[in-house]
Amino acid sequence: MQRVGYLGPKGTFTKMAVDALFDQGSFVSFDSIPACLDAVERGEIDTGVVPLENAIEGSVHLTIDYLIHQVDQSVIAELTVPIRQHLLVHPDYNGEELTHIYSHSHAIAQCHQYLYKNYPNAELEYTASTGRAAEVVIEKGVHVAAIGNHLAAEENGLNILTPNIHDYDNNHTRFAVVQKTQRKLEVKDHPIATQKTTVMVTLPKDFVGALHQVLAAFAWRKMNLSKIESRPMKTGLGNYFFLIDVDQPYDDVLFPGVKAELEALGCTLKLLGTYPSYQLDIPSPVCQ
Amino acid sequence: MQRVGYLGPKGTFTKMAVDALFDQGSFVSFDSIPACLDAVERGEIDTGVVPLENAIEGSVHLTIDYLIHQVDQSVIAELTVPIRQHLLVHPDYNGEELTHIYSHSHAIAQCHQYLYKNYPNAELEYTASTGRAAEVVIEKGVHVAAIGNHLAAEENGLNILTPNIHDYDNNHTRFAVVQKTQRKLEVKDHPIATQKTTVMVTLPKDFVGALHQVLAAFAWRKMNLSKIESRPMKTGLGNYFFLIDVDQPYDDVLFPGVKAELEALGCTLKLLGTYPSYQLDIPSPVCQ
Repeated sequence: MQRVGYLGPKGTFTKMAVDALFDQGSFVSFDSIPACLDAVERGEIDTGVVPLENAIEGSVHLTIDYLIHQVDQSVIAELTVPIRQHLLVHPDYNGEELTHIYSHSHAIAQCHQYLYKNYPNAELEYTASTGRAAEVVIEKGVHVAAIGNHLAAEENGLNILTPNIHDYDNNHTRFAVVQKTQRKLEVKDHPIATQKTTVMVTLPKDFVGALHQVLAAFAWRKMNLSKIESRPMKTGLGNYFFLIDVDQPYDDVLFPGVKAELEALGCTLKLLGTYPSYQLDIPSPVCQ
Repeated sequence: MQRVGYLGPKGTFTKMAVDALFDQGSFVSFDSIPACLDAVERGEIDTGVVPLENAIEGSVHLTIDYLIHQVDQSVIAELTVPIRQHLLVHPDYNGEELTHIYSHSHAIAQCHQYLYKNYPNAELEYTASTGRAAEVVIEKGVHVAAIGNHLAAEENGLNILTPNIHDYDNNHTRFAVVQKTQRKLEVKDHPIATQKTTVMVTLPKDFVGALHQVLAAFAWRKMNLSKIESRPMKTGLGNYFFLIDVDQPYDDVLFPGVKAELEALGCTLKLLGTYPSYQLDIPSPVCQ
């Protein structure tokens, strides 16, 4: 049986991604991204699921930097999950004044305008995750609320007082599924949105137009890039590498051609993974 | 007197940036990035200081997205601060066992390997900021520690038990200084590392090689780019804009030329700021 680790506790957005991807397996919750990736590295779990972009719980840079610098793992799938934040209350709640609202700092910030308009007097209290915030409501009672997703409500027996209180629609988080030794990934039946390949490119030095030359190697082959991000190399300010998402699977002609061309320019190219990209569609919950 | 707001409380890395930049003024602490930027927007403060990249407290994406979508402000300076995390203990600490270690989740993650090796049995507890973690040590006593910077130690009367416990050297955070109505910025005497200009470029649609064409407009003018990042447009998946840092001040020839060329391609270019980039050098503290 596959052993899947994730950034927990129960009721986080990462757990939503795990539930959407996996039917069977043993599931292990970790309290930080490095702890989860270390467990994959040591072989304690087969598969790790961690936030990769626009995350609620945990820093995105942390995931990328840990994958680049600390472990030797491949991204074998990604899942995009829409971020819908709801105001969650105790099952006994009956219109009492809400004095405190709990959540992860990013979730509170994402609902900043809603809270400012509707609960200007409530104290905002920070927790390690949106899942943890939901647990606190059960402990504290009817005068407090949590901000979290519908899974956090279900897992803790809370009611959704107001759904969709986030300030932006169309906010999504990308989750990476990683493995050390590539095994077959048994996931639920999802339509595959696209096949992607992620590579890391380092430049020999900070020279004018270097990135332009790198992109030319992709552009003249008509390889479409869906994301590009520069990140510091950790060897001092001003030294960057580039993470590039290419909208096609790895192949034995185009990618090796790009690699050879870049190496001739003094660059390096490392493959971080070629993988299916899934999308999760969550129906909006009805107000209770 | 200038009114400066920042992501607080006292003892955060943002407050370190404020202390490094400003001699005089009235200083106001905010508990979230949106709250700070909203106060600038409403004119309650003249200047805001918020984390922009590789932040400890608060999400970087949150700052960028709020500047792009919610407010109309300019970046008028940036300051780069080295991130040095220390293990902070109560002034009465005398070798007692540390049962709990408090900090912001990002700071705990940044010291993950140190904690794993040295304090495998301590409970890790999360706070809204590294500054708040230091306050908790005063409240809880000698059996707990905090992870934070030297300012958090000073402000709260804590001792540094072990300095520099972060897993990576050369980790830095960039802070943005923003204003709504551009006023003269009276900062302390710092050597200016470089002059930068940040622009936002949107593409007409996700066409092959679009970014390559955009970069060509900079490359043939020999304008060096120090950072490029794609971000979702919030109008649905797959629509991206690009944030580009150019290593030179805005001028009336090159930048308008780039703008005109990009507009001819169906792109838009918006100036987010042209500003001095300062660097803060912090001497490493001695173990107490």
